[in-house]
Amino acid sequence: MKTKRIFPVAAHAARTVHRRRAGATTTDERDDLAVEEPLEIRVEGRPVAVTMRTPGHDEELAAGFLISEGVISRCDEVRKISSVVNKGRTEPNIIDVKLVRPESVDFARLTRHVFTTSSCGLCGKATIAAVQARCAAIAPDYGPRVEATVLAQLSGTLATAQTVFQRTGGLHAAGLFAADGRLLVVREDVGRHNAVDKVFGHLLLSGKIYPAGAILLVSGRVAFEIVQKALAARIAVVAAISAPTTLAVDFARANGMTLVGFLREGRMNIYAGADRVIG
Amino acid sequence: MKTKRIFPVAAHAARTVHRRRAGATTTDERDDLAVEEPLEIRVEGRPVAVTMRTPGHDEELAAGFLISEGVISRCDEVRKISSVVNKGRTEPNIIDVKLVRPESVDFARLTRHVFTTSSCGLCGKATIAAVQARCAAIAPDYGPRVEATVLAQLSGTLATAQTVFQRTGGLHAAGLFAADGRLLVVREDVGRHNAVDKVFGHLLLSGKIYPAGAILLVSGRVAFEIVQKALAARIAVVAAISAPTTLAVDFARANGMTLVGFLREGRMNIYAGADRVIG
Repeated sequence: MKTKRIFPVAAHAARTVHRRRAGATTTDERDDLAVEEPLEIRVEGRPVAVTMRTPGHDEELAAGFLISEGVISRCDEVRKISSVVNKGRTEPNIIDVKLVRPESVDFARLTRHVFTTSSCGLCGKATIAAVQARCAAIAPDYGPRVEATVLAQLSGTLATAQTVFQRTGGLHAAGLFAADGRLLVVREDVGRHNAVDKVFGHLLLSGKIYPAGAILLVSGRVAFEIVQKALAARIAVVAAISAPTTLAVDFARANGMTLVGFLREGRMNIYAGADRVIG
Repeated sequence: MKTKRIFPVAAHAARTVHRRRAGATTTDERDDLAVEEPLEIRVEGRPVAVTMRTPGHDEELAAGFLISEGVISRCDEVRKISSVVNKGRTEPNIIDVKLVRPESVDFARLTRHVFTTSSCGLCGKATIAAVQARCAAIAPDYGPRVEATVLAQLSGTLATAQTVFQRTGGLHAAGLFAADGRLLVVREDVGRHNAVDKVFGHLLLSGKIYPAGAILLVSGRVAFEIVQKALAARIAVVAAISAPTTLAVDFARANGMTLVGFLREGRMNIYAGADRVIG
């Protein structure tokens, strides 16, 4: 069985960040972020999954995905794992697995996770472009202006409102806040994306229209999917208790959004749209 | 627009847990866990997504999913959201959205996330049964016997090995350990499921066969998906730094696996298969 590693891959990459600390010191620095890029996994040339992943060990990811799906369980069932070459160019984000007995694969079952790759794109840039074709960017004068001191209090407010987390330690939370720091709605779920969808669904079903002035805060890390959902719901300011990924930052910048990470204990890192944070 | 809430839903539910603390005290108690169950979202009766979620606010989740997917943006575009009734029985885990203008929906694009529900099942029990049809349960005498003192050290070892997390704060990690506490492989990724798949892929591609004696440790919480992957890779002992969900615990018990949560600072909660933890 052959595997080929062609690309120098980085699991982290630097972006500029605007740091604020409790003592009102603000600095612009380079910050290391976890890299997030889509990977398309193919079996015998047929796409079976697209997953947002950190580049590196992609041949292991493809093999492990097929173990988890019950397709393979031993090394000698795999003939070759390699990046796809398209018109002489190797695609770093497409990997193909050739099997010893391809006729044993139930493609109908296996492709249940598949995204249409034509719409999703296969690098960070294409992923951003695909969403932009569907959702307009947010204008600079849209969205709230938020006092840094107000922003700094939101993580404490969210923690107090996470009632199921307090009992179980097992739920993500998403909260929507007014620009003055008032909590509008909080939802908890085992899936971070579900907590965010519930918040947006609440907005729509309650008939309250406050996206333009609202701030979304998520309890953990913030990856592409969350920022993309916020754009669809026209929420200009997204904050997270923990770290963003490269793609979340690049997406927020490309779409005129404000993205704040590590919002905790009087400190915050502003990765995009710092002019919506005042004071 | 009408929405109907029929079911008393609980976001948390109790399971028995075997607690061990540094001072070697062990107690059996009831512990509150976050509930995890599948929800099938339908539009005009057609399944468009299945997501593992915490029950409650399901009508918001369905509406929010459609906002995120760009299908709707205003309340007056929705005609009705309700649980599906099947042969006179209301299905708590299937929700249907009726739109004012259903002809505007691009179902081909929308269903890109769809799981085949026939194989996945639509409650925790059916989800477990569907996987069991594909993977045999683990026998009581399979898998390692692990000293509690060894287990207690694994979280520190994993933290030291999370080199990209130390730079970025933005990655999940999965580590595979021998029964004596030796770290065999660690992988980091923005997606927890990807980190686990990379570990399993590493096992397979490196030709090292140690699943029977190995312990999988994940850096965050542990939901159904992770325990299901471990079963497929024949890993009997799964541990997590943070909380498990109800479905992770129920799945581990139904399949003869050992599941440990909150493995940190000399303490642990054993939710399933406590007899593999000795001393």
